[in-house]
Amino acid sequence: MIYSPADLEAKINLAISELDYKKEPLSLFEPIEYILSIGGKRLRPILAYMGTNLFSNDIDKTTYPALAIEIFHNFSLLHDDLMDNASIRRGEQTVHKKWNANTAVLSGDAMLIDAYNYITKVPSNVLSPILEVFTETAMQVCEGQQYDMDFETSLNVKESDYIKMIRLKTAVLLAASLKIGAILGGASNEDADKLYDFGINIGLAFQLKDDLLDVYGNTLSFGKEIGGDIVSNKKTFLLIKALENSNESDKATLKEWIVTERFDANTKINAVKKIYDGLNLELMTDKLIQKYYLAALNCLSEVDIPSDRKNELLIYTKDLMNREK
Amino acid sequence: MIYSPADLEAKINLAISELDYKKEPLSLFEPIEYILSIGGKRLRPILAYMGTNLFSNDIDKTTYPALAIEIFHNFSLLHDDLMDNASIRRGEQTVHKKWNANTAVLSGDAMLIDAYNYITKVPSNVLSPILEVFTETAMQVCEGQQYDMDFETSLNVKESDYIKMIRLKTAVLLAASLKIGAILGGASNEDADKLYDFGINIGLAFQLKDDLLDVYGNTLSFGKEIGGDIVSNKKTFLLIKALENSNESDKATLKEWIVTERFDANTKINAVKKIYDGLNLELMTDKLIQKYYLAALNCLSEVDIPSDRKNELLIYTKDLMNREK
Repeated sequence: MIYSPADLEAKINLAISELDYKKEPLSLFEPIEYILSIGGKRLRPILAYMGTNLFSNDIDKTTYPALAIEIFHNFSLLHDDLMDNASIRRGEQTVHKKWNANTAVLSGDAMLIDAYNYITKVPSNVLSPILEVFTETAMQVCEGQQYDMDFETSLNVKESDYIKMIRLKTAVLLAASLKIGAILGGASNEDADKLYDFGINIGLAFQLKDDLLDVYGNTLSFGKEIGGDIVSNKKTFLLIKALENSNESDKATLKEWIVTERFDANTKINAVKKIYDGLNLELMTDKLIQKYYLAALNCLSEVDIPSDRKNELLIYTKDLMNREK
Repeated sequence: MIYSPADLEAKINLAISELDYKKEPLSLFEPIEYILSIGGKRLRPILAYMGTNLFSNDIDKTTYPALAIEIFHNFSLLHDDLMDNASIRRGEQTVHKKWNANTAVLSGDAMLIDAYNYITKVPSNVLSPILEVFTETAMQVCEGQQYDMDFETSLNVKESDYIKMIRLKTAVLLAASLKIGAILGGASNEDADKLYDFGINIGLAFQLKDDLLDVYGNTLSFGKEIGGDIVSNKKTFLLIKALENSNESDKATLKEWIVTERFDANTKINAVKKIYDGLNLELMTDKLIQKYYLAALNCLSEVDIPSDRKNELLIYTKDLMNREK
């Protein structure tokens, strides 16, 4: 049986709702329950289940590692929001705003440990390879966050630096979710690696789409406001290309906006967007997204299973690429 | 062959010096190299080695988990120092003072992940039980730190609450070090558990000794200043007993000192110490230390190996109890 994304989302949400964080000390565990309950797309657990389901009809054994991956992902959001001093996550207060910085540090630590608690519950014959992927990936996510923070204070970030950063910060965890799922499904090493490469390319396309939607997304979308990255000077693909490709006058305008501390948000968004428009960055970014998406499809085509087993994953990732928010 | 603590300290220090943290992004890994290089007693790795050495002459296989435990311990110090806003650790600047808070958060996270990287390198036949001890212990250390922070804002901490807190924050990691070492040495479950209980009692005695030394220690000691816990209102065993046992007048004096924000450190230390002296807290604390130390010896006596194999561990822990700084 092939499960749909909706089936899998329901399955992981049920598993999350059954986690027991109502225990002492409450001040440690309540923020964990909070951040896990405020939603999200559950993209990574769904990919983990799908990775298993490509090769096997028995996906129940993937629930613990899927939980581990989702808890790890939310740990990284919790600590990233603290480091970025972000106030809102998924339309709700971030943990360090709702509680305080110390709570964000320590509850985040407890989540990382709890992620290991669940990843360790995989069958013992696959424990070593799965731990290896998980730990390597977790470290890479930290490296990606460090590069992202380092880039904040630099005006000379190159496209290749940026792609490296989003590969580490975002793509590897999507890829690892698929690979861990595949290992649990009994995939060959070759197929598991092909699926990992598929995940890397989908992850890069996914993050570039995020960058694009921040500027050119549907304004009716919720959770995030349009132009948030522009307001906060986030070094997105668009800003990096704009700093690289614009003429001296536009470059000076961009740098001026970056250092200006008091401004009207809409004025800044419109001014920066005008420069992006002049450089045709919407089209350029979309082309790069298509490049990675096609590379992903190419990797998936090489996974040695009947093509009808790949349909749900293909449709799911296509929808991710075509989302408007 | 039975190794001495000095042998084992040299062995773990060599292994730490060979860790490669000279890699990109430097801003992530430099603070890790820094905190691991500024020393410490290496108590936990030495206990892990000793746990193995009780049962086996081959202690090399304990190096990776000993590294994991020491990296985990230093991760917890790094994040605790951030949460406590401490400036000095082992006579050197803390990571969040030398760099900044974000560095302390993220380099700490990377250390926790790296600890898992090394704990995972144990032989596969003992991987599951060792991961279980390690993860349970890591979570307990977080719980202990949370209780410690919760106690800061409470004047009604009971002795039993305090013992529970130091068991979680300090004792379980010493106990787990011994137990993980014992598992690697091929100990029976019963012996590994007895050694764990030995470690819990030693850990409680060790922390109470720390509390005692802060007030009644040798003033020539270095790394920590005498009276630091009094100055910072730390809820040590002595302060908790003083708040519990003193008459109304002394209790009012203590509470007054706790809320006073500007004061001469020596005046405060002397005033609080006078109350401790009047309650005979040095003797009371020392008696409790002896109680836990004797309980520890009792546990060790039940470990089913020739008693001469226990000598180094006995001497080492006795020295810990009798240290004057």
